[in-house]
Amino acid sequence: MADESDPTTQRTARRRTARSPRPERATRTTDTYRHLRNPFPTASVLSDDEVVHLHETALAYLQRSGIRVLLPEARHVFAAAGATIDDDHMVRLDVDLTRTLLASAPSTFSITCRNAARSVEIGGDSLMIFPAAGPPYVSDHVRGRRSGTMADLDDFVRLTQRSEVLHSTTPVVEPQDVPMAHRHLRMMRSALVLSDKVPCIYARGRGVVADAFELVRLQHGIDEQTFHERPYCWTNINTNSPRQLDVPMSLGIIDVARAGQVTIVTPFTLSGAMAPVSLAGALLLQHVEAVAAIALAQAVRPGAPVVYGAFTSNVDMKSGAPAFGTPETVRAAIASGQLARHLDVPWRSQGASTSNTTDAQAGYETMMSMLGCLTGGANLVLHAAGWQEGGLTASFEKFVLDIEMLQMLAEALQPIVVDDAELAIEAIDDVGPGGHFFGTAHTLARFETAFYEPEVFTRQNFGQWTDAGSIDAGARATGVWQRWLAEYEEPPLDDAVRDAIDDHVARRIAEGGVLPES
Amino acid sequence: MADESDPTTQRTARRRTARSPRPERATRTTDTYRHLRNPFPTASVLSDDEVVHLHETALAYLQRSGIRVLLPEARHVFAAAGATIDDDHMVRLDVDLTRTLLASAPSTFSITCRNAARSVEIGGDSLMIFPAAGPPYVSDHVRGRRSGTMADLDDFVRLTQRSEVLHSTTPVVEPQDVPMAHRHLRMMRSALVLSDKVPCIYARGRGVVADAFELVRLQHGIDEQTFHERPYCWTNINTNSPRQLDVPMSLGIIDVARAGQVTIVTPFTLSGAMAPVSLAGALLLQHVEAVAAIALAQAVRPGAPVVYGAFTSNVDMKSGAPAFGTPETVRAAIASGQLARHLDVPWRSQGASTSNTTDAQAGYETMMSMLGCLTGGANLVLHAAGWQEGGLTASFEKFVLDIEMLQMLAEALQPIVVDDAELAIEAIDDVGPGGHFFGTAHTLARFETAFYEPEVFTRQNFGQWTDAGSIDAGARATGVWQRWLAEYEEPPLDDAVRDAIDDHVARRIAEGGVLPES
Repeated sequence: MADESDPTTQRTARRRTARSPRPERATRTTDTYRHLRNPFPTASVLSDDEVVHLHETALAYLQRSGIRVLLPEARHVFAAAGATIDDDHMVRLDVDLTRTLLASAPSTFSITCRNAARSVEIGGDSLMIFPAAGPPYVSDHVRGRRSGTMADLDDFVRLTQRSEVLHSTTPVVEPQDVPMAHRHLRMMRSALVLSDKVPCIYARGRGVVADAFELVRLQHGIDEQTFHERPYCWTNINTNSPRQLDVPMSLGIIDVARAGQVTIVTPFTLSGAMAPVSLAGALLLQHVEAVAAIALAQAVRPGAPVVYGAFTSNVDMKSGAPAFGTPETVRAAIASGQLARHLDVPWRSQGASTSNTTDAQAGYETMMSMLGCLTGGANLVLHAAGWQEGGLTASFEKFVLDIEMLQMLAEALQPIVVDDAELAIEAIDDVGPGGHFFGTAHTLARFETAFYEPEVFTRQNFGQWTDAGSIDAGARATGVWQRWLAEYEEPPLDDAVRDAIDDHVARRIAEGGVLPES
Repeated sequence: MADESDPTTQRTARRRTARSPRPERATRTTDTYRHLRNPFPTASVLSDDEVVHLHETALAYLQRSGIRVLLPEARHVFAAAGATIDDDHMVRLDVDLTRTLLASAPSTFSITCRNAARSVEIGGDSLMIFPAAGPPYVSDHVRGRRSGTMADLDDFVRLTQRSEVLHSTTPVVEPQDVPMAHRHLRMMRSALVLSDKVPCIYARGRGVVADAFELVRLQHGIDEQTFHERPYCWTNINTNSPRQLDVPMSLGIIDVARAGQVTIVTPFTLSGAMAPVSLAGALLLQHVEAVAAIALAQAVRPGAPVVYGAFTSNVDMKSGAPAFGTPETVRAAIASGQLARHLDVPWRSQGASTSNTTDAQAGYETMMSMLGCLTGGANLVLHAAGWQEGGLTASFEKFVLDIEMLQMLAEALQPIVVDDAELAIEAIDDVGPGGHFFGTAHTLARFETAFYEPEVFTRQNFGQWTDAGSIDAGARATGVWQRWLAEYEEPPLDDAVRDAIDDHVARRIAEGGVLPES
């Protein structure tokens, strides 16, 4: 056996293809990446009965024990819908009331983009991939690890715009050099001018959301009524697990739902800390909180587009640190997909890892997360590029490595064409036993675009690679993000629109901006 | 949004669990790893019609054009079964003859192990994981990259024995310090004495196979007749793509089938070199060759256990090097699973990567391969630990990293228990809104074994990790394989059996051994 590792055989392959011309080819970044479909049948870690049992247990729990809601307005919305509220701000919903509210959540919807070709569908087998969101720190191999800046965020928006495999801009890093009251304005400006992809908004209070909406409307050139007719942007709302909705989050759910924009509700259920140490318990708590948040959105506006966000992971019981890309996250992700489908709403998961650097651990863990997303049938994969240190740092090199991986996955999701030309019977005949296919007309006609060509992964053999300095993939990634930034082109935007956005930002900053609510 | 990366929230989790006692816990290496089941529904990249079309096209091709068979004895077997042979040694099989021969291949079988608890089932949803097989070079961070030695192979057999997630020993590295005529004897001794797992044998000619069988019989203490009654070992046979079966491979198929042992037939179809540059064409060629080899085994002994091996990958058209962990390998793997199931025989795939070192690329690529294996429904995953440089080198550090990944996958494949205790309703009640679960009785009763605890991946935060020297996962792996080797214990074996094995090896070496045939 073992011809598979036989250097003679492998050298033969090398020699045969060494005669090949070596054109400088563009990478196969195709339009198909823009609208990915997940072809994998959905996996299960729960039986159908267990899904029903978890769901019904969550509904019964909301009726018996409820969830604490810190915003009076949100309690009023719940009360008006028929919930009971006690003096501890605990909101309890009858099982039938919850069912009624959940029923109006749509199973699919779209987000309309300034560049229509980049509008996205959420739900069904549509697979949307978003980069990391929220790390306070930033890292690269040139400048080291440091607090995130506005310049860093602008660069990440440029890198996001450049990659066809990412479907939305996000706050990849928190720009801590911008005063808090101005931050959302500068961040929205970055997203709306440097990219023509779907924008993410921060739900950090009423004033912040109002500014974000106004800027999105300016980008689209639409009035408030038109804006309210369909989704143009999305936000992510984390509940304060266990069993609590705080003020800015409740405000976010209300304001975003009222405007008909997209809310991803994501309980922050780290198993072993804010959630039970048992996966079933963490999933139950996640479901209780997600159902309550979705119910609030539907009470505000029936039919408001919501996504079931699932972030359940585990805390490392030795170090106390949240861990990602763990076996438990894979199981929790697949279960969450089942629960979301039971609600008949889209499901968001994430590509995430724990590693502190761009090493093998980062690669294995990120792919472990992606395995859960892909086999679980995620509609939305957040944090899929650049997430490092369990989300504390946005890494430029990790971003590049993840894009490579995502492009490879996007290629791997394409079907195989089976027709006479691709079956190549004539070429097989012509080559004959023991021959090789390099020189055939069939190969020459196809070799330039036959295979995905990596941008940062290397196919050099060991000798070539050591001659080139034995540089690992993390280190090679530095030159790649630098090149991608150098090649970046700002998408077309009417001067009048850009001016309107810039004017709004400048005016609001001059007015002092607005602080997040807490 | 973005609490997910909020350092305050994450610090809270850390602080809460920092009060935890920190016992030195054993890793959760459970007996369940020994008998893995793949719970993922099988994915498709071909429609059912396309599968049938590929299969029927392959059968028609074997009837019209055939495969070249270099061993006269193999041609006689084919001729006796009803095939036609021409002067160029081309063997052509009528479609009906091929169907008849294929029909006797079993869909499932077992391999009986000296240690009955380690016997394996092949087929169905059983998932067997085997380490790398065949690299001529070996590498570790202490001794560098060098030619493989017998001492290295012994160490890899020890590491394989130690890991419950590996189900067979393999020739992880080729011991080039042992003369060719003695090599198989020393390798079999290593597999049969240092491990009690399923052994792999080399099919490098009649004499080599005869020695291997005799040694396996000595280990089991059985005679030839008993040996022929069921499988006790396996081999891998690569066809000489395109469309050729050479002498040692044909001999291997015949001798292993005649003895009722397991043959994995694996066409060496590297798309762009030994196979068409189009995936459909490479798969067609793979199927033609696999079907011919399986037909030969069935002509020798109807019911001989065979596995459909699929190695189709692509050559990098720029460097000429074979590439693994590519998008094309994922698609080819899933298609191969469909073709194997159409034949109703078990399917072998592989975990493989191209990277020259234990970097992020190695992690992403290996997991890309595993994605194809798991979603495609592989029964056997070869090369799943230690494979580096596209199989030219067996890396001790990569072996450790892969074991970590495989253990994580094994954990991820376990179902979630949903019962009252795991749902933790009482704990959720007790903790209350905004609290934490650390101190609860529910957590204390479970935290020691709740989660998979990594052996080489770290959960340290950035500060702890930098304080410890910023050591990446590849570098950390060195201490791990050293520790695992230090902890290794040879499995129990009767002195008489060990002596019999050693005597046979010594006698055959004294006789001069036997050279492989070519």
